[in-house]
Amino acid sequence: MDVYVSGVGMTRFGRSSESLDQLMADAATLAMENAGLDRVDAIYIGVMNVEEFVGDSNIATVLVDTLGLSGTPSTRVETASSTGAGVFETAFYVVASGHMKNVLVLAGEKMTHLPTVKATRILSEVIDRSERRYGATMPALAAMIAQRYAQEARLTISQFEEILAQVAIKNYANGTHNPLAQFKKAIERDDYLKSPMVSYPLRIHDCAPISDGAAAVILTAQPAPIRVSGIGHATDTSAVRHRASLTSFNSTREAAVKAYTMAQVNPSDIDFAEVHDAFTPFEIIGTEDLGFFPSGAGWKAIEDGTTQALGKLPVNPSGGLKARGHPIGASGLAQIIEIIWQLRGDAGEDRQLERAEIGLAQSIGGLGNNNLVTILERTDRKKTKSEGWKLTYHPEIKPSRKPATPEPRQGIGILETFTILHATPEGFRSPLALGFVKTEVGERILACNPDYRSPKDLKIGGKVNLIPKEGLYVFEKATLMGRVKGLFKSTPRTSE
Amino acid sequence: MDVYVSGVGMTRFGRSSESLDQLMADAATLAMENAGLDRVDAIYIGVMNVEEFVGDSNIATVLVDTLGLSGTPSTRVETASSTGAGVFETAFYVVASGHMKNVLVLAGEKMTHLPTVKATRILSEVIDRSERRYGATMPALAAMIAQRYAQEARLTISQFEEILAQVAIKNYANGTHNPLAQFKKAIERDDYLKSPMVSYPLRIHDCAPISDGAAAVILTAQPAPIRVSGIGHATDTSAVRHRASLTSFNSTREAAVKAYTMAQVNPSDIDFAEVHDAFTPFEIIGTEDLGFFPSGAGWKAIEDGTTQALGKLPVNPSGGLKARGHPIGASGLAQIIEIIWQLRGDAGEDRQLERAEIGLAQSIGGLGNNNLVTILERTDRKKTKSEGWKLTYHPEIKPSRKPATPEPRQGIGILETFTILHATPEGFRSPLALGFVKTEVGERILACNPDYRSPKDLKIGGKVNLIPKEGLYVFEKATLMGRVKGLFKSTPRTSE
Repeated sequence: MDVYVSGVGMTRFGRSSESLDQLMADAATLAMENAGLDRVDAIYIGVMNVEEFVGDSNIATVLVDTLGLSGTPSTRVETASSTGAGVFETAFYVVASGHMKNVLVLAGEKMTHLPTVKATRILSEVIDRSERRYGATMPALAAMIAQRYAQEARLTISQFEEILAQVAIKNYANGTHNPLAQFKKAIERDDYLKSPMVSYPLRIHDCAPISDGAAAVILTAQPAPIRVSGIGHATDTSAVRHRASLTSFNSTREAAVKAYTMAQVNPSDIDFAEVHDAFTPFEIIGTEDLGFFPSGAGWKAIEDGTTQALGKLPVNPSGGLKARGHPIGASGLAQIIEIIWQLRGDAGEDRQLERAEIGLAQSIGGLGNNNLVTILERTDRKKTKSEGWKLTYHPEIKPSRKPATPEPRQGIGILETFTILHATPEGFRSPLALGFVKTEVGERILACNPDYRSPKDLKIGGKVNLIPKEGLYVFEKATLMGRVKGLFKSTPRTSE
Repeated sequence: MDVYVSGVGMTRFGRSSESLDQLMADAATLAMENAGLDRVDAIYIGVMNVEEFVGDSNIATVLVDTLGLSGTPSTRVETASSTGAGVFETAFYVVASGHMKNVLVLAGEKMTHLPTVKATRILSEVIDRSERRYGATMPALAAMIAQRYAQEARLTISQFEEILAQVAIKNYANGTHNPLAQFKKAIERDDYLKSPMVSYPLRIHDCAPISDGAAAVILTAQPAPIRVSGIGHATDTSAVRHRASLTSFNSTREAAVKAYTMAQVNPSDIDFAEVHDAFTPFEIIGTEDLGFFPSGAGWKAIEDGTTQALGKLPVNPSGGLKARGHPIGASGLAQIIEIIWQLRGDAGEDRQLERAEIGLAQSIGGLGNNNLVTILERTDRKKTKSEGWKLTYHPEIKPSRKPATPEPRQGIGILETFTILHATPEGFRSPLALGFVKTEVGERILACNPDYRSPKDLKIGGKVNLIPKEGLYVFEKATLMGRVKGLFKSTPRTSE
């Protein structure tokens, strides 16, 4: 059964004095009014971590009560930072089953009332336990991915910083046209370069902010002008170090293939996209994983303006997570709402795109391990063809490999990438150097060293010694190669 | 599209040294082996509060990784203490949509590693915020419901204690035949009466234990011997005091009507049931709400043995939450698994019921506000009729009424029910008397008084004064009626 959108609603994102319940009720009321409904058959709630951000359980019941809809079935759904897209997917299947006609999808998060240190700690719980132990935060892992991307794309860090600056500048600029965005102020290159370093090379302006906000959509079995035409969802290993590639996300690639297949479209058919830019490098990687641009060439689309609002393939016309804000549970649904507004022609004079018949939203859960791709289109869209359709996008998906838990051991390896983390978690020294080290047997190890305080201290591709210490690995530049033999003490066990 | 069961798996419930991941992986592996599958199209994970019990977010990804199934879409679903049934319902719709063929439903919780005080605090977060502020815990609210039930059924508390004892004795006895049950030891009347009081009149033996455990089911679109024939889900107000009745749950009644309607059966068609007995009185209330027995007469079925394993309508042949254990997120799914085992004839010599062609599981979320009813049957079940089927069960559902937040004010009222809570939350005096007071305008107020230490101090139906204190209401026996005038200082505002 086909599934359509009949209503949308969203609060302003940013710092709010309202409670989570009230924010979510506000969004829900707007969506129900927009759909002309005063009741629905079921409610699906997306919140990532209401338990720790707000101190409540049973949010599905609290919200149905706040809405005055007690009785209505209400279920909470969660897929880490892609929760807003995950709850939309689940509700899509519920309507597609034919058992429910109108379903309210309601997503939100309330975060700004907590001190940043506490919010950061809660957010970092989505990171793999073994990597979290090193003090790795989301920005730290994203920063290591960014450095590796630059290396593989043969860009100097200075060149890549200019690219990242342009992503930020574009999304802030787009946000100025979004009345619900957290940041409605354009930034310039200098603002970007002056903004504090969070985790080298990522600055404040590379990272989505901490935000409050809620978003709501009504899905219906009744034909309406906007149809959900494709949904794809895929996961990847919890730990980043188990991935074959650090510069693309299998979970986006697999989700994209599924979504394109369901919608019977190819990347080249997409008019515009909302791409999860919790960190600016993720927008670039996202546009590659979605098949818009070849691997390693996504950064060129930033440079040549392709993804600008007036470009050939606008990306994040809403301002993205960067400017709209990132209330974790809500973001995935807010992206979908931007697609709907654009398809409806309701985005407002300053923001409305010229060509908006089919749009795509991509959302990242965790550090790229629970991702969704959602495609929506106008039902009056002129399809170029439907019979004989073929998927032409066949991304390389190198499987992640989870080795058997390795025992701490000494040895040498090559520094694949690193970061200098400034905003360290409680209990860790700041700054803290973190690096992924590829060992001689091809295994990737996360290691740290609080004594390296500057990126100049380290070099990607350089040899390092790995030294087990307090259950973690410390890495040190292998300046004294003669002293530490280039062999592991024990042969690492790996699962094939 | 019809939905069938092709595999089940469950760990032993109780205190486990295994991690949550490992417990859940164990259950999943058993279910996949049982179904003869080595991969599935999607995974739906039910865990109530992994964030606080375990300190992790992103559980859907962690588990798919633990299972070695990275790539597979994985989504977490939560409906408070009915989570196991809620995730089963969601996965049912996913398969019914035709988009997924084989789906793994996997539910669990890990609780015993925490001190009881901390586990109790986490559990109490499902309670309405305004009622939690009084120190109300799940047992306290259940105890007040129990006392009210006895009053309305015209049973003395001593008589009702004997009934509750028989519920506990029955479920412990059933548990002795369940190799996966936490408690496999029968108890006698004396054991029950000697067990410590948790919240008067409920004792330890009336309350489900804190447990670890996991359960898994494979749902499939491919015809198999067991079919999911009915699912119903309904909510109720967050606060107990807003309900029209304290002795039945609208959410069960509405869910039951939906499930019977989908399955085209009536209560009298059900061969056996698993009924959510987190507290013994809830089993009695559940059997009434499900239409097995008239309102106020469910207790007679305990007395006359109807719900015994060898009775006409066996209830909780597994031992129920009481004896099997209650790892919150897993319980709803464990109930469904017992239904499946019985329908398959796989429950084992000592536990297998003679008549098991159609079974029902009822699960309670929160304090009776997010409930589900699931009906499963053998596809070879001889149906008495299918055409011209009519629902004959039409329970009275008095709507809950949520008044506008009342301002603290003085007045008198009638004590509808009370409890003496012994296991109080941190920061509260013990014991603590809690009571629901019906005011002259028909509004129900929760009030407390730490000076009443014995049930003899209080009488249901007696007049009490309500005194606002520190933002809460204190109730006191209205012995000095002349002093406090029988009128509120301000007229309470209520929403109609």
